[in-house]
Amino acid sequence: MSENLAGDFRGAPNRPDRGKPADGTAAADLTDRYRAVRRLTETLAAPLSAEDQQVQSMPDASPTKWHRAHVTWFFETFLLKPNLPGYAVFDPQFHYLFNSYYETLGERQARPERGLISRPSAETVTRYRRHVDSAMAELLESADAAQLARLTPLLELGFAHEEQHQELILTDIKHAFSRHAFAPAYRPAQMLRQTTLPAVEYIAFTGGIHPIGHDPDDGFAFDNESPRHQVLLQPYRLASRPISCGEYLAFMADGGYAKSDLWLSDGWATVQREGWQAPAYWRRDGAAGSKDGDSWRIFTLQGERAVDPSEPVCHVSFYEASAYAAWAGRRLPTEAEWEHAAASRQARRQGGFLDPMHPHPRPAAPGPDGGLHVCGEVWEWTRSAYEPYPGFRPLEGAAGEYNGKFMIGQQVLRGGSCATPAGHLRLSYRNFFPPAARWQFSGIRLADDV
Amino acid sequence: MSENLAGDFRGAPNRPDRGKPADGTAAADLTDRYRAVRRLTETLAAPLSAEDQQVQSMPDASPTKWHRAHVTWFFETFLLKPNLPGYAVFDPQFHYLFNSYYETLGERQARPERGLISRPSAETVTRYRRHVDSAMAELLESADAAQLARLTPLLELGFAHEEQHQELILTDIKHAFSRHAFAPAYRPAQMLRQTTLPAVEYIAFTGGIHPIGHDPDDGFAFDNESPRHQVLLQPYRLASRPISCGEYLAFMADGGYAKSDLWLSDGWATVQREGWQAPAYWRRDGAAGSKDGDSWRIFTLQGERAVDPSEPVCHVSFYEASAYAAWAGRRLPTEAEWEHAAASRQARRQGGFLDPMHPHPRPAAPGPDGGLHVCGEVWEWTRSAYEPYPGFRPLEGAAGEYNGKFMIGQQVLRGGSCATPAGHLRLSYRNFFPPAARWQFSGIRLADDV
Amino acid sequence: MSENLAGDFRGAPNRPDRGKPADGTAAADLTDRYRAVRRLTETLAAPLSAEDQQVQSMPDASPTKWHRAHVTWFFETFLLKPNLPGYAVFDPQFHYLFNSYYETLGERQARPERGLISRPSAETVTRYRRHVDSAMAELLESADAAQLARLTPLLELGFAHEEQHQELILTDIKHAFSRHAFAPAYRPAQMLRQTTLPAVEYIAFTGGIHPIGHDPDDGFAFDNESPRHQVLLQPYRLASRPISCGEYLAFMADGGYAKSDLWLSDGWATVQREGWQAPAYWRRDGAAGSKDGDSWRIFTLQGERAVDPSEPVCHVSFYEASAYAAWAGRRLPTEAEWEHAAASRQARRQGGFLDPMHPHPRPAAPGPDGGLHVCGEVWEWTRSAYEPYPGFRPLEGAAGEYNGKFMIGQQVLRGGSCATPAGHLRLSYRNFFPPAARWQFSGIRLADDV
Amino acid sequence: MSENLAGDFRGAPNRPDRGKPADGTAAADLTDRYRAVRRLTETLAAPLSAEDQQVQSMPDASPTKWHRAHVTWFFETFLLKPNLPGYAVFDPQFHYLFNSYYETLGERQARPERGLISRPSAETVTRYRRHVDSAMAELLESADAAQLARLTPLLELGFAHEEQHQELILTDIKHAFSRHAFAPAYRPAQMLRQTTLPAVEYIAFTGGIHPIGHDPDDGFAFDNESPRHQVLLQPYRLASRPISCGEYLAFMADGGYAKSDLWLSDGWATVQREGWQAPAYWRRDGAAGSKDGDSWRIFTLQGERAVDPSEPVCHVSFYEASAYAAWAGRRLPTEAEWEHAAASRQARRQGGFLDPMHPHPRPAAPGPDGGLHVCGEVWEWTRSAYEPYPGFRPLEGAAGEYNGKFMIGQQVLRGGSCATPAGHLRLSYRNFFPPAARWQFSGIRLADDV
Repeated sequence: MSENLAGDFRGAPNRPDRGKPADGTAAADLTDRYRAVRRLTETLAAPLSAEDQQVQSMPDASPTKWHRAHVTWFFETFLLKPNLPGYAVFDPQFHYLFNSYYETLGERQARPERGLISRPSAETVTRYRRHVDSAMAELLESADAAQLARLTPLLELGFAHEEQHQELILTDIKHAFSRHAFAPAYRPAQMLRQTTLPAVEYIAFTGGIHPIGHDPDDGFAFDNESPRHQVLLQPYRLASRPISCGEYLAFMADGGYAKSDLWLSDGWATVQREGWQAPAYWRRDGAAGSKDGDSWRIFTLQGERAVDPSEPVCHVSFYEASAYAAWAGRRLPTEAEWEHAAASRQARRQGGFLDPMHPHPRPAAPGPDGGLHVCGEVWEWTRSAYEPYPGFRPLEGAAGEYNGKFMIGQQVLRGGSCATPAGHLRLSYRNFFPPAARWQFSGIRLADDV
Repeated sequence: MSENLAGDFRGAPNRPDRGKPADGTAAADLTDRYRAVRRLTETLAAPLSAEDQQVQSMPDASPTKWHRAHVTWFFETFLLKPNLPGYAVFDPQFHYLFNSYYETLGERQARPERGLISRPSAETVTRYRRHVDSAMAELLESADAAQLARLTPLLELGFAHEEQHQELILTDIKHAFSRHAFAPAYRPAQMLRQTTLPAVEYIAFTGGIHPIGHDPDDGFAFDNESPRHQVLLQPYRLASRPISCGEYLAFMADGGYAKSDLWLSDGWATVQREGWQAPAYWRRDGAAGSKDGDSWRIFTLQGERAVDPSEPVCHVSFYEASAYAAWAGRRLPTEAEWEHAAASRQARRQGGFLDPMHPHPRPAAPGPDGGLHVCGEVWEWTRSAYEPYPGFRPLEGAAGEYNGKFMIGQQVLRGGSCATPAGHLRLSYRNFFPPAARWQFSGIRLADDV
Repeated sequence: MSENLAGDFRGAPNRPDRGKPADGTAAADLTDRYRAVRRLTETLAAPLSAEDQQVQSMPDASPTKWHRAHVTWFFETFLLKPNLPGYAVFDPQFHYLFNSYYETLGERQARPERGLISRPSAETVTRYRRHVDSAMAELLESADAAQLARLTPLLELGFAHEEQHQELILTDIKHAFSRHAFAPAYRPAQMLRQTTLPAVEYIAFTGGIHPIGHDPDDGFAFDNESPRHQVLLQPYRLASRPISCGEYLAFMADGGYAKSDLWLSDGWATVQREGWQAPAYWRRDGAAGSKDGDSWRIFTLQGERAVDPSEPVCHVSFYEASAYAAWAGRRLPTEAEWEHAAASRQARRQGGFLDPMHPHPRPAAPGPDGGLHVCGEVWEWTRSAYEPYPGFRPLEGAAGEYNGKFMIGQQVLRGGSCATPAGHLRLSYRNFFPPAARWQFSGIRLADDV
Repeated sequence: MSENLAGDFRGAPNRPDRGKPADGTAAADLTDRYRAVRRLTETLAAPLSAEDQQVQSMPDASPTKWHRAHVTWFFETFLLKPNLPGYAVFDPQFHYLFNSYYETLGERQARPERGLISRPSAETVTRYRRHVDSAMAELLESADAAQLARLTPLLELGFAHEEQHQELILTDIKHAFSRHAFAPAYRPAQMLRQTTLPAVEYIAFTGGIHPIGHDPDDGFAFDNESPRHQVLLQPYRLASRPISCGEYLAFMADGGYAKSDLWLSDGWATVQREGWQAPAYWRRDGAAGSKDGDSWRIFTLQGERAVDPSEPVCHVSFYEASAYAAWAGRRLPTEAEWEHAAASRQARRQGGFLDPMHPHPRPAAPGPDGGLHVCGEVWEWTRSAYEPYPGFRPLEGAAGEYNGKFMIGQQVLRGGSCATPAGHLRLSYRNFFPPAARWQFSGIRLADDV
């Protein structure tokens, strides 16, 4: 993240040791983190007008205003109502409007109709946020150590939850702006630093029995990362970095979108039905087949510009990732391979939002991520369906709906993206989306059998 | 219109003799009327927040902000650009965003995607309106008599056009608010005056050859009202007022929505598919079949309240109007019958917006509308398909797309509604909507053969 | 009709005076006509295998087997069950399977699912037809004069009904075969007689008050043709023949399908959505824009062949007819104009099925159709919506569903087609289809104001 | 299989050692097996009329006639054309009509439009089958040992392929008949043997490293069963038999279809959208909530009858299997658990088609299937997504499209059903369907953590 944004977009501190506040500083620490998370959400929404915050451009994406209210409702519902005596609900109607998908909490606004919620206004949502923030401060101040210890898991879930929605604010407004006839920019454009991209290396990992999943001594994690368990891996190799736009352009130039044998059957049907010829947000600059038909432009949160061949390709679906791998004569890694490789290289995810909110060309120098560059440029599709780990048990109560019920029809992504808040990620983190989804910052890392 | 609203909602003066400004006061007169029309639009939008103005709740309805900008674009495109030398277009992108359906003027925002236009903001649209208003004032001031005479038809079209969108602002925000989980009110609720509804009388009219259509000596009219021509009518009778909610409830109580033989085939299919059991915006208060299952509530621009049996039923489709007529053993009038009846009774449409923007119970006393009460409570479905009059010719150029191209698949409605601006209507006025449409203030008047 | 088909396709005799059998020969006459109608249906189905008769290629089209059974069910339901004592229903389940749209007769097979009726087999339907034919013979033989007089209207309706389905057998199997990958022929191909097409003349008709609609002294007609009533016409001119393929090709070559201003709004939307570039069943022979891109082939009931410029264009929608008229600077006639013109020229529809079941190039010589060639080449779209005539009353009971309930969303067609059985048509006949329908033999005749 | 069917439905011999024909009897053996497989297909189609064989009742299901032709096309395309010199293709158009999904073999009939193929007739398909059978006999007779060895894998694939379609003939005609208004029976009804169902036992299996997948020494298998590889299992327990209808009725009676917390999110959405309240082919006998509202009837290939509580529940989706497991406090097994359990108990699938083509109540006695009853009553949904085994490589050429391209969006089913031909199954067999599919004979076996 460049200097000029550091102040704006600094989220919750990156705390590998978090989750273990035992002494008297726990409350202060949690209060600090609460404030940091909440402030970041508002910073992200700041460039958006009341109207921008109102738009819902597809059923999968939500209005910014809704995100801002929903994460607030989460604290109100799971923390304040059960734990702060005398807490006055800001507006009882919000329970209906801003519940996302918790069936056990009752009826709610249908997801594709979140764009109809013109009231409350963005300004009222700001007041709602302040009301809840104030009550949360009261709750944290007044809690004794035992209560704090009891609340901490839910607080951590609330922080992580809001961080997830911070990423969605960015991906959803990107989609909304891309549907606007004149595709406005979310942030001012910046000069790209020209870089030379190092060639992909295939790093070998030995097989055998290895642990994956969340280590309970390691702070907070979502329930779907547990239990930690042993997996048996064949020897394999993993690419040293994600595929670049330049590499992907070679696939396109070779007719990748027209060769059925590269594609999974559902993927091929999707290509035909949707008329895909490039990643999402790409636009051909000039007619197909014309002399400059191979010149592509890309819509980013800074507006539209030429594609930079040295930046990681993103906004590809699992289908496209899979077809690219077939074309390249490789395959996608399983999530166990991915996690084992990252862990064995002691990779560490760095930074947070990457200015300018777009994956950017990598410097050649290996960093503290073990040479794997799993540093949050793009989410990386794996070959693994999103399934429960052996012995998985969802949380009790409504929070149990957080992850488990989505364990069908989705593929796991690993890593993290330029739009993921600092401190949100772990090597055991399991993101998941349906195989046709493209509106996330999702890219491709290849693997290989030895 | 009640006193307390008179100031707010006074639109363009009701001028049966308008369209003939010959002397030196023409420019001043046109300027006054321009200002009045434009001011009324803003008055109607005033209760709506930026977010309210952004919402598009169905493909047929447009956001308030879009209406405000589109009518402004109309003056810019048809009046200013061709006629005001040196006129600086406010923003060239608006031509794409705010063209409605003029194919000959180029590509435009798809209608179902008007809700995506988060930019410009409502506030920028206000500046756009001021920019155009200022230029229009300049145009009217600087025009000489010959130029004024030449511009007047287009100005009149612009006024009438903006008045049409004033009605749509109301019907469209009504739809949007009805889709909000908590159905907010556009205006504060008012006490209803209790009235006793007079019984429907069937007034006889003799047949023969009669003229219908717009008399060119009679000021402005849309092209679809011309040419005036003779029609041959059989003797018929026309109801003295529209059907009331109480009368419609009797149809419902008699199983009207469950008896296929009352319905046109397409209407019956629509009832089945949509699950219609009552007019739009009605909600059963209590479970069907329960003791109070027959108690209905109605959503209005003032929020939800009990149905008043003495008010005209509205928000019914042509299918429902036709089924009701079959149940009542009558029929709907043709548009020629309607116009002849109104003309022969020297009916005159009065008033304008009816406070509280809802058709209200009629006083018993006959007024200047010849006892027909064609006074703008509800639009009245006729049995006539919307077809060209014999010898019809659309206007030249893009304005020719105004009416003619919609002459298929629609039924004619006559009269005018509580949401129609004062001065907008004529007895020759031909409104039109598809037979399944219900979001306009559309009601039922019956006719009969002698 | 050519000689070699005369024997096969001779239907019910063309009897303008039918419907008045008073003397003792009435029963024999009705029996003869019954047999002739029924035999023709089987002749039409004869070239079709059991599998051909099973296919339903779109919701609007029905399988041949279903048509054969449905018309039989009509006689069983409306004639035999109420009138033949002791009549044994062939199979009680058929009432559900072969009711078409009579809501008052109870639940029935959904129209789009008629292709699921694999049982009964085509052979069993043949037995069903024989069973009903035998009972009908018994009914007609045993009826006394009074009973015959009472039954005659329903018998006439049954004949006309079966004749309508004879036409649908042809249009529906044509659609089904057109969807087969190798588009088989229903009949063997024949050599086309080369002809020179006379130029279109515009024949003037004076306006004034004229009667249209069915004259009750004139034999059987459907209820929708009544009552006969006076209409007031402006002077007009009517084309002497339908538009030819050659003339339509000029419209296409001039970009007719790409000029929005020629089209009704719904028509233009349909062109865009469906990708129409030519009439139904036309296929470009060579790539668009290529040297031979303007060479078109046409699928007929005899298989595919080159388009003959001198034959009437058919399988066009109302939208296309309307666009063509706009392009030609003319308009479509109203149904009143059409009927008055035909009646005043004493036009008489001749022949029946036109071999080879396709509209064929006209000889130059005017015939007994008054020079209008309203002889059943193609159905002619009119500018008139399908509405009730003044004073229209549907038949009592289930037969009342025959016509009236379809009087919305459809346009009237006049004339008759090469697939209409001999004797089925009248100058007052009102055929009707939705404006987008193209699977009937529907063409274009232009009109003009004087 | 009962005696009276033994002769009819005897398919290819169950040959665990097949695939190793080395000596001189290889050709004779292959010829015998070819004939047996081909004969069985015709036996299965024998009760179906030409019309029955024509119907396609949903896009996923194919007409019987199409199945019969497609499997024949498979032998023609993969065996005869490349290997039998001078082979005369029966009809070149069949390549388009009867290719299923082999993109590399060119364009083909769209799957949802197979019901449009009225030509060739069922009888012509019979001649096609004979033509190919005769040529195949010639090929097998004339091949020398080397050629036979080379052809054997493709022959084995052809046998297995036709066996798969034999099962689909049954499941697809079952669906078609279920959509018929009077739900005809494929086979005559038989008396059910009353049985007492043993309680489910949960059999413990130790964890550790175990091999799964096809052993290359073990005869033919599909490519998706390879390579055989080691998996690491936690200790687990597996149910001794599938869930019965009686057990499933308890889930239904407890509101299983109304409790969102039991369902995966996609499953719950499907339940709501489709209105599921019971397995496919179940029909409530009496109104819901009425005294006998809990009495259910089931449509089988023998027609409709009461549900037998002691028979395995089938025609449930993965979503329902998953919800049932959640309700029961258990889970579904992974495919590795399933295969390891079956292999370690030396289970052996017995028999073939189960008369009367419906899963039937089990006798209490354990058989040669190791007490697991994996004997082909129902396919058993597993918790495993259908993914490539580590090191999986599809076959070369078009045959490579057989399995690999479907490895997304599907769940693995293990076991086999009452509609699976004898000799078709293996313990390593991986069947797969999307999680919402219900038209296969798919049931539920539970597992548990130790």
